[in-house]
Amino acid sequence: MTTTAADPEVAEGLRARFRTVRSFTEALAAPLSPEDQTVQTMPDVSPTKWHRAHTTWFFETFVLTPHRSGYEVFDPAYGFLFNSYYEAVGPRHARPQRGLLSRPGVAEIAAYRAAVDEAMDSFLEEGLDADVAGLVELGLNHEQQHQELLLMDIKHVLATNPLRPAYVDCVGPATDAAPVRTAPQWIPHAGGIVPVGLGGDGFAFDNERPRHEVLLRPFAVRSTLVTCGEWLEFMADGGYRRPELWMSDDWATVQTRGWDAPAYWVHEDDGWTVQTLGGPRPVDPAEPVCHVSWYEADAFVRWAGWRLPTETEWETVATERTGGGPDGGVPGGAAGIDPAALRRGAPHPVAAVDGDEQWFGATWQWTASPYGPYPGFRPAAGAVGEYNGKFMVNQHVLRGGACVTPAGHSRLTYRNFYAPASRWPFTGLRPAVDR
Amino acid sequence: MTTTAADPEVAEGLRARFRTVRSFTEALAAPLSPEDQTVQTMPDVSPTKWHRAHTTWFFETFVLTPHRSGYEVFDPAYGFLFNSYYEAVGPRHARPQRGLLSRPGVAEIAAYRAAVDEAMDSFLEEGLDADVAGLVELGLNHEQQHQELLLMDIKHVLATNPLRPAYVDCVGPATDAAPVRTAPQWIPHAGGIVPVGLGGDGFAFDNERPRHEVLLRPFAVRSTLVTCGEWLEFMADGGYRRPELWMSDDWATVQTRGWDAPAYWVHEDDGWTVQTLGGPRPVDPAEPVCHVSWYEADAFVRWAGWRLPTETEWETVATERTGGGPDGGVPGGAAGIDPAALRRGAPHPVAAVDGDEQWFGATWQWTASPYGPYPGFRPAAGAVGEYNGKFMVNQHVLRGGACVTPAGHSRLTYRNFYAPASRWPFTGLRPAVDR
Amino acid sequence: MTTTAADPEVAEGLRARFRTVRSFTEALAAPLSPEDQTVQTMPDVSPTKWHRAHTTWFFETFVLTPHRSGYEVFDPAYGFLFNSYYEAVGPRHARPQRGLLSRPGVAEIAAYRAAVDEAMDSFLEEGLDADVAGLVELGLNHEQQHQELLLMDIKHVLATNPLRPAYVDCVGPATDAAPVRTAPQWIPHAGGIVPVGLGGDGFAFDNERPRHEVLLRPFAVRSTLVTCGEWLEFMADGGYRRPELWMSDDWATVQTRGWDAPAYWVHEDDGWTVQTLGGPRPVDPAEPVCHVSWYEADAFVRWAGWRLPTETEWETVATERTGGGPDGGVPGGAAGIDPAALRRGAPHPVAAVDGDEQWFGATWQWTASPYGPYPGFRPAAGAVGEYNGKFMVNQHVLRGGACVTPAGHSRLTYRNFYAPASRWPFTGLRPAVDR
Amino acid sequence: MTTTAADPEVAEGLRARFRTVRSFTEALAAPLSPEDQTVQTMPDVSPTKWHRAHTTWFFETFVLTPHRSGYEVFDPAYGFLFNSYYEAVGPRHARPQRGLLSRPGVAEIAAYRAAVDEAMDSFLEEGLDADVAGLVELGLNHEQQHQELLLMDIKHVLATNPLRPAYVDCVGPATDAAPVRTAPQWIPHAGGIVPVGLGGDGFAFDNERPRHEVLLRPFAVRSTLVTCGEWLEFMADGGYRRPELWMSDDWATVQTRGWDAPAYWVHEDDGWTVQTLGGPRPVDPAEPVCHVSWYEADAFVRWAGWRLPTETEWETVATERTGGGPDGGVPGGAAGIDPAALRRGAPHPVAAVDGDEQWFGATWQWTASPYGPYPGFRPAAGAVGEYNGKFMVNQHVLRGGACVTPAGHSRLTYRNFYAPASRWPFTGLRPAVDR
Repeated sequence: MTTTAADPEVAEGLRARFRTVRSFTEALAAPLSPEDQTVQTMPDVSPTKWHRAHTTWFFETFVLTPHRSGYEVFDPAYGFLFNSYYEAVGPRHARPQRGLLSRPGVAEIAAYRAAVDEAMDSFLEEGLDADVAGLVELGLNHEQQHQELLLMDIKHVLATNPLRPAYVDCVGPATDAAPVRTAPQWIPHAGGIVPVGLGGDGFAFDNERPRHEVLLRPFAVRSTLVTCGEWLEFMADGGYRRPELWMSDDWATVQTRGWDAPAYWVHEDDGWTVQTLGGPRPVDPAEPVCHVSWYEADAFVRWAGWRLPTETEWETVATERTGGGPDGGVPGGAAGIDPAALRRGAPHPVAAVDGDEQWFGATWQWTASPYGPYPGFRPAAGAVGEYNGKFMVNQHVLRGGACVTPAGHSRLTYRNFYAPASRWPFTGLRPAVDR
Repeated sequence: MTTTAADPEVAEGLRARFRTVRSFTEALAAPLSPEDQTVQTMPDVSPTKWHRAHTTWFFETFVLTPHRSGYEVFDPAYGFLFNSYYEAVGPRHARPQRGLLSRPGVAEIAAYRAAVDEAMDSFLEEGLDADVAGLVELGLNHEQQHQELLLMDIKHVLATNPLRPAYVDCVGPATDAAPVRTAPQWIPHAGGIVPVGLGGDGFAFDNERPRHEVLLRPFAVRSTLVTCGEWLEFMADGGYRRPELWMSDDWATVQTRGWDAPAYWVHEDDGWTVQTLGGPRPVDPAEPVCHVSWYEADAFVRWAGWRLPTETEWETVATERTGGGPDGGVPGGAAGIDPAALRRGAPHPVAAVDGDEQWFGATWQWTASPYGPYPGFRPAAGAVGEYNGKFMVNQHVLRGGACVTPAGHSRLTYRNFYAPASRWPFTGLRPAVDR
Repeated sequence: MTTTAADPEVAEGLRARFRTVRSFTEALAAPLSPEDQTVQTMPDVSPTKWHRAHTTWFFETFVLTPHRSGYEVFDPAYGFLFNSYYEAVGPRHARPQRGLLSRPGVAEIAAYRAAVDEAMDSFLEEGLDADVAGLVELGLNHEQQHQELLLMDIKHVLATNPLRPAYVDCVGPATDAAPVRTAPQWIPHAGGIVPVGLGGDGFAFDNERPRHEVLLRPFAVRSTLVTCGEWLEFMADGGYRRPELWMSDDWATVQTRGWDAPAYWVHEDDGWTVQTLGGPRPVDPAEPVCHVSWYEADAFVRWAGWRLPTETEWETVATERTGGGPDGGVPGGAAGIDPAALRRGAPHPVAAVDGDEQWFGATWQWTASPYGPYPGFRPAAGAVGEYNGKFMVNQHVLRGGACVTPAGHSRLTYRNFYAPASRWPFTGLRPAVDR
Repeated sequence: MTTTAADPEVAEGLRARFRTVRSFTEALAAPLSPEDQTVQTMPDVSPTKWHRAHTTWFFETFVLTPHRSGYEVFDPAYGFLFNSYYEAVGPRHARPQRGLLSRPGVAEIAAYRAAVDEAMDSFLEEGLDADVAGLVELGLNHEQQHQELLLMDIKHVLATNPLRPAYVDCVGPATDAAPVRTAPQWIPHAGGIVPVGLGGDGFAFDNERPRHEVLLRPFAVRSTLVTCGEWLEFMADGGYRRPELWMSDDWATVQTRGWDAPAYWVHEDDGWTVQTLGGPRPVDPAEPVCHVSWYEADAFVRWAGWRLPTETEWETVATERTGGGPDGGVPGGAAGIDPAALRRGAPHPVAAVDGDEQWFGATWQWTASPYGPYPGFRPAAGAVGEYNGKFMVNQHVLRGGACVTPAGHSRLTYRNFYAPASRWPFTGLRPAVDR
């Protein structure tokens, strides 16, 4: 196979981004003690130190080992411990048991990161082939996904603790005396044949391609997310106790797990509080509701007489409204979390103001679409081909991005996905209706 | 609400069909002892006597009680025992515990059927409103579904028994000395906008409507089902042991349940046998493979380099090929089971011959489509609205019909659905490819 | 090995007893439909038709096959289906799946019983060796145990049914206008060295031997069983909700299973009813409490300031009071169930009257003694050696006998045993105190 | 209640012992990182930092809070987090979830220990009542039990890790060139009435009292523990695969858990290794077998033609042989672990030499006795009465002491107890026979 050297400028840009992304992971872990970084509170959650090691293993396994001549792995045992789910790479430590490992500890993992960072920096300095550049790009996007997972997971770890500790003390941004709330309105669309998916050359996950066309009927999507205030109405109207609002699997799940409110909501004597990364605080009716499962989102829209948008509908309207995505400022939405945002306080979805429609930066938005391949989908070759395609059953697509999604990681064509009972991601919803 | 009297001819036709359908249920139960009719071998399976009672309860609850003046329920306790899943009708006996009930016994259930049949016959004789006629029609289609379930379930009950008894002795039809096998070919389609779903006035389940348009890309579907011979090749090539062929949930299921062949296949010293409703017999490579889950179907087509068709693709090509559905003779396929077929022997999917493409009458065919609502779907009003809509998550659509589907019950727009791990329905597959 | 012919009179007596015991099993099954005889409502419960077949298999396997020349087994598959737990005899059908088998049905099992009965009758008519006579004797005692199990199990089957049917209509015996209740009193014992276990030649299970001596401290045992009235006081005093009354495993069990009353008690609007083999009826405060676990018995005596007697204490006092066991009339207690008793109505523990102390014939009585081997215990040789010894851990000993214990099956040295959470046997308690 | 001041010398001795015992806990935790101290690898295991906090909570709750005027609890939340099982003290954090708590971390727990130690030291300096002295004494014995649990638990934590790290590097003591192994011999006893339990005034747990008499038959107990070499013979003879050697519950456990060797044994290419607190090393046939369950011990002695001794038999012979217990030097056995022993290397049961019969200091020894109350047993009053009595069901008694039992904590009358499937304590066995 002939390979092409990547553009030197691209390579140098990649080297800079490598440093930025990698150091942000360390910044996210900085407020956490060794004990915090060790605990796993449910099978879906991974310990912080595991995330730090696994993202490092990704670069070591898919970039350094095959492409860096003379590279020696940091510790041969790490391949077993820090492989997540790549069957092609070999056996691995079972996911639900990640919290049973006290060794390697955070100090060893910090050393592992430093060693791989140093090797990568030298490697990137020397220039690289275009296809290896693609792997590095994939690795950086992969690490950004784990940055979000790290925050989701540590939120669960801290909220499981009866002491209800905060990840960082929440110092909210100074707000205006009288913020102008974004007004909810129905954004109509006439339907017809629309394009979906990414067509150009930029980085995207394989599941966003190929770009193709879909036929839509007339519909409307709301300009704002469903709020906690609306959710409280649903609850007050018996939403969690009326089987006619739920599908069969939904209802069984609600009954089995005893759900009566979104995850992280706690009923106290004086009303509902919500556990945030900044600790507990009263539920704010103006905020977007967060940490609801697809099952709950589906019941909510049935109760309201609405429906969830399909992912095509979401992408079509979001493209129009944001003028190109999350970088476009209002109404595209906040850009997600970065070091500056982290310094301002714990990430949390805030009420929509000043016309911001929150397509990005607040919560992920459940769609009606089961997660599956686009027509003509082909997974990437090799082990990294296990990245997305192998999850295309029993999940639903979420669109947009959340307050814990790293800045620069969002796209209009981005397809996030979770099982319909999941509540630990930052998941909310935006309603749609037929016209 | 003003109601319209049904056409007397329609009403009389309904009365005749009522007798025919109800008596076929009894014919299906006739070979079974009281003990056979009592057992439940897994949560999905219901006892035969439960099917006989539940279908009767349907007419009693949705037709006689609300619409027949002066009707008194046969036994008030039956409402609790024989409600399947209608939340709106009230609490009910738990599904996995249906096999724990020895009472009412088969004799009492026969008396229940006779009493309701008599009341229904008088009721239908007097003529009826059009909307009530719709409920009777729904009840008959419901009972036909349970006729198929009865056969699926008793197959599981008998196959679970180490004695491997037969439901009826299998006397296959006399075949030609040299049957002409149907040749597999790829049936191409150019794509474009196609209609899907039922548009006219005839009976259909609510999930088949509304008729709407879908945009397709060019593709081809195969004229024949995947055979046992092809499946044996898949197995011989390590199909059940190679994780790269399976999605993540698939692989976990295969590992957990120890699958290494379709359900009902047993490895004996001299090769594979298959348990049929006529008892065990050697696997015939020419027959369509049956009792494979969606997970297995998905792995198989990945292995073969094909894919599953979407339900739209299936419906589009099947409509063209069958000239209107299962009643059209070859290549539409056998019409399904009826009293005459039952007398000929145990139902079992047979090899395709003489150009029969088996769109109907052999096995249900998994599609790539997760089961969801059509655009603009509205469930029927009232408790019968729980019929289909409440299952529109975590299932995949199957199209066509099987050798155990009652004659007259199939349609080109029919949407069957099961969870992707299900293997006890008569499920097979028909491959597709992009063009 | 030289064997000795059994005394002809003994042999003839055995032949008569064989007929009596075997026909009583059939009498116990007679009120039950084929459906009733098929169902298994929990892993501990076996279907009636299984009991009928398993007891037959015992004679076929341990008597006819090895000792009757030319005997051919009725059906080779039955050895797999009807072996209960004899590892030495070979593999067997799993216990929790006995209710999944509809075949062989009750008619085939009746034929099996008839064939084995006929072969046994001829065999016994010809006279037999002493050691074979011992196996027949063991088989008859084994069948009597299953007669009690059959009643315990069908009680569970029928009580699980929401219709709450009766096994037989309960026609209680005519009672005096004013029955004289047995007065509770503490029967003192001075302690010292006492004998325990069976010393003579009569039939006994291996676990009753060898007779040995035990040193006792002074104690007293109560002349009457704990009554439902006393149990209602325990409940009213928060017995099921006060952790200090329960040991650690006890309390976990109570919490997990949600116990708040004895098994088969149901709280209705107007008080507690108890499901009996004769159907539901109000709880009678004068009756002995029944269907309580060892955990509950232990909590009850802790609440009352008493304790459970050891099995040695029970045997010592019972021997004195009954003048030799259950055949001694009052105060030895009712002799257990027989055809005449069954004709009078459903067996149920009744209030103690006229000085009957109910050492036998009402309920089994939990003791403080974990079930273990007597000093010098040796299990019988061969497969029948698996009869008792293999259960000598995690169980507690019960003494006496219940209203469902067959007449002639009880002994002062009899050691019944169940796991401490068991509630489906007819289990009650008799308190003791230190002196 | 009138209380008596404790003897000043006793009080001062208690103060010194308090410091010694408490600081040894810290010495045991010293080799462990914060991560190590956080992990819980199964429900039975508690994190090291939990042990450190719970033992501190014991002194705070039972001594300082009720008896030290003006004492303020360190943190009110700790009462919920660090209560183990005292129902009388209030609700508590669930045991299986101890490993889900990252906070409080090891630094906070060290501060908690220091604060309570300081308060206790002042309190003890001022003298104290005799009954409070008893509570302090109980607290010190309680902490010694947790020192052993800490070592058992961390062994499990480290052995679960695929890296198989050591707790401390094992530096065995210098041994003679040719150690003289202790010769196995059967120590006979003539039987008769013997005393059991503690009669005098010294400290003992409530379950060791009252002293009482038991009648024994003639028997013999072996002078040495069962060795790894003997266990390898059992394994080679199919010990784990022959159902006739196991009781019913035993066999089910072996099958379910897939046991084929003692816990911590790993089969490598070149034979069996054992994971120790000093890391993995080859199994030494001369060492006592350790980490076997009661089920395995029971099967082993059945295989060998022996039996387990009762706890009375053990106590009777041990008393004779050791001349008064573990302080008596050889043949009483090593005194258990202390700071000096810890400095010499990881604790591990070593081969018996020079006539040491290892009644103490190697492994705990399973007895045939189910754990129950002695005749006349009365639990201590108040919450500390939950200490032993509430576990008197479904457990078996172990006697002696192990290499991880703290020095000074063993007694001839000491009754340790575990469920019969437990393998994570340091459990071995010493055989007995009838004579």
